[in-house]
Amino acid sequence: MENLDYIEIIGLCAAVLTTAAFLPQVYKTWKTKDVSSLSLPMLTMFFIGVVLWLIYGFLLNRPALIFANSITCVSAFLLFYFKIKYRNR
Amino acid sequence: MENLDYIEIIGLCAAVLTTAAFLPQVYKTWKTKDVSSLSLPMLTMFFIGVVLWLIYGFLLNRPALIFANSITCVSAFLLFYFKIKYRNR
Repeated sequence: MENLDYIEIIGLCAAVLTTAAFLPQVYKTWKTKDVSSLSLPMLTMFFIGVVLWLIYGFLLNRPALIFANSITCVSAFLLFYFKIKYRNR
Repeated sequence: MENLDYIEIIGLCAAVLTTAAFLPQVYKTWKTKDVSSLSLPMLTMFFIGVVLWLIYGFLLNRPALIFANSITCVSAFLLFYFKIKYRNR
């Protein structure tokens, strides 16, 4: 259990860094409504991928994976939603 | 072991989708040399985060995590490198 804890701490640091890196993009897209540089197929793939990572995290019961992918799932969904909503502007 | 295999297949599907979603961005940045919309602090955080995910994958000995984060690590490094190289254009 001692080993598990230190692995999970590394995972949680990873989780904080990679999830936080997405937030400026979500904020920028929400503010500017400029979705021209976002690709819908890419966003769709990414969103499905993150949902699968979340399932993977639950199956392995790994807090770092569950935490990271829950938040990234919301970010990815928001970008996907903005793209659909603003693409005809 | 049967359970592990099916979990790892879900992880590998996730890995293919989320890593592939980054390749168009890397390609586009390489072609256009336009790094104006990429934020250096964001890229730095993301790169360090992915390196930590890779270490996490090795510690857990999970092929899906190791595969996904090895490739994303290269993508993240390339974006970081392009940002440094082309930011003063």
